[in-house]
Amino acid sequence: MTRVPDEALVLVPGGTLITETPEEGRALAMAIARNTVHTLQPELEVLQAGRPQYAGDAAKLIAAVQVVSLEFQTIAAANHYWR
Amino acid sequence: MTRVPDEALVLVPGGTLITETPEEGRALAMAIARNTVHTLQPELEVLQAGRPQYAGDAAKLIAAVQVVSLEFQTIAAANHYWR
Amino acid sequence: MTRVPDEALVLVPGGTLITETPEEGRALAMAIARNTVHTLQPELEVLQAGRPQYAGDAAKLIAAVQVVSLEFQTIAAANHYWR
Amino acid sequence: MTRVPDEALVLVPGGTLITETPEEGRALAMAIARNTVHTLQPELEVLQAGRPQYAGDAAKLIAAVQVVSLEFQTIAAANHYWR
Amino acid sequence: MTRVPDEALVLVPGGTLITETPEEGRALAMAIARNTVHTLQPELEVLQAGRPQYAGDAAKLIAAVQVVSLEFQTIAAANHYWR
Amino acid sequence: MTRVPDEALVLVPGGTLITETPEEGRALAMAIARNTVHTLQPELEVLQAGRPQYAGDAAKLIAAVQVVSLEFQTIAAANHYWR
Repeated sequence: MTRVPDEALVLVPGGTLITETPEEGRALAMAIARNTVHTLQPELEVLQAGRPQYAGDAAKLIAAVQVVSLEFQTIAAANHYWR
Repeated sequence: MTRVPDEALVLVPGGTLITETPEEGRALAMAIARNTVHTLQPELEVLQAGRPQYAGDAAKLIAAVQVVSLEFQTIAAANHYWR
Repeated sequence: MTRVPDEALVLVPGGTLITETPEEGRALAMAIARNTVHTLQPELEVLQAGRPQYAGDAAKLIAAVQVVSLEFQTIAAANHYWR
Repeated sequence: MTRVPDEALVLVPGGTLITETPEEGRALAMAIARNTVHTLQPELEVLQAGRPQYAGDAAKLIAAVQVVSLEFQTIAAANHYWR
Repeated sequence: MTRVPDEALVLVPGGTLITETPEEGRALAMAIARNTVHTLQPELEVLQAGRPQYAGDAAKLIAAVQVVSLEFQTIAAANHYWR
Repeated sequence: MTRVPDEALVLVPGGTLITETPEEGRALAMAIARNTVHTLQPELEVLQAGRPQYAGDAAKLIAAVQVVSLEFQTIAAANHYWR
């Protein structure tokens, strides 16, 4: 089994919740969610086998977006909503 | 496979969470959720095949609305609830 | 296929999150959730076919209530909890 | 079909989110969740048929508690957490 | 059928959301979640039959933890996060 | 059956929600979620049998990440988002 590279296991990429723009904040939300997946399941082959399993299934895809929504709530609050 | 157009991959369409009205805020919540779906699954054919899969199924439809609810919580807070 | 009427597609009926009472706030939460369903699935026949599918199934009914709970969190905060 | 009684369709029983104690607040959270169920599905026979369906199934029971948790978040905030 | 004892039906054990420590706050979150389960399903035999059903199933176990997470959000806010 | 070690049953490892960095906060979110799992299901053999069950299944893995997202919301707020 191949382990995902170390940078894919950083829990908060960049080390901060503060971003310049909402666009960057949303990208960070996705990166945080993704790297928690990697930390719970660091085997590359299993992750790659699971990708079509969720990306082609509406229910799983919606569940993945929901996680991003929750992460984004945190990041948006951290940035005072970039007001 | 056809990739969704670039504008469908903008994570926060318009680049801001601030809107004039609650109606626009809700529309933004839907757009943000939708474009995260596109980013996780950018293949147009898979998205189009998945549409009847969720839009005709009550459980998946409810799950999709729940994501919009979460995005709207963030956007409403950003706009001080348009008070 | 019949499309739901235009008023069923207003994302935030009344155009505001502010209500006189908690009762009206809860009704608004339900209306917002419902109209997002309509917007994601505007075909009346599909909606009508889906109604018994969820209203007679405990799991789907609970999921629908959960969406209302989330919308109500937003509306209650908007109204300073009608304190 | 028998319709649930009118008082079971009041969306916010008592008309306020403010309670004397956390215990009463939690009871209100349950009442609000329950009456939204009634409003989405007002037929008594369907509700009674659905009760064993969820109360004897761990997954549905947990989902029902989750709705109560969300309602309680709102009510607790409304009451400044009864501090 | 045996009914769970009365103390297992107290919705907010101790009658307050305020605790001395995060550890106690987390234990309270679990107790609140558990007693809401008891209130929705007070029959001891059904609860005992349901226990292996969820504790041995990863999906149900994760759903149970999620409820605790939501209760803990409320309790942590009530305690100003024990800062 | 073997019971998980005592330290795996501490509900809030370290006894505080305050951390130096977002990275540590995210790790704490994972530890809190994990130890609640242990508390609900302290039998090591069942936990070990359940691990492949969730870590190789996209839906369960996403659900696990969602719990971490919720815990992280609490911890991030506790730390004023490490601003």
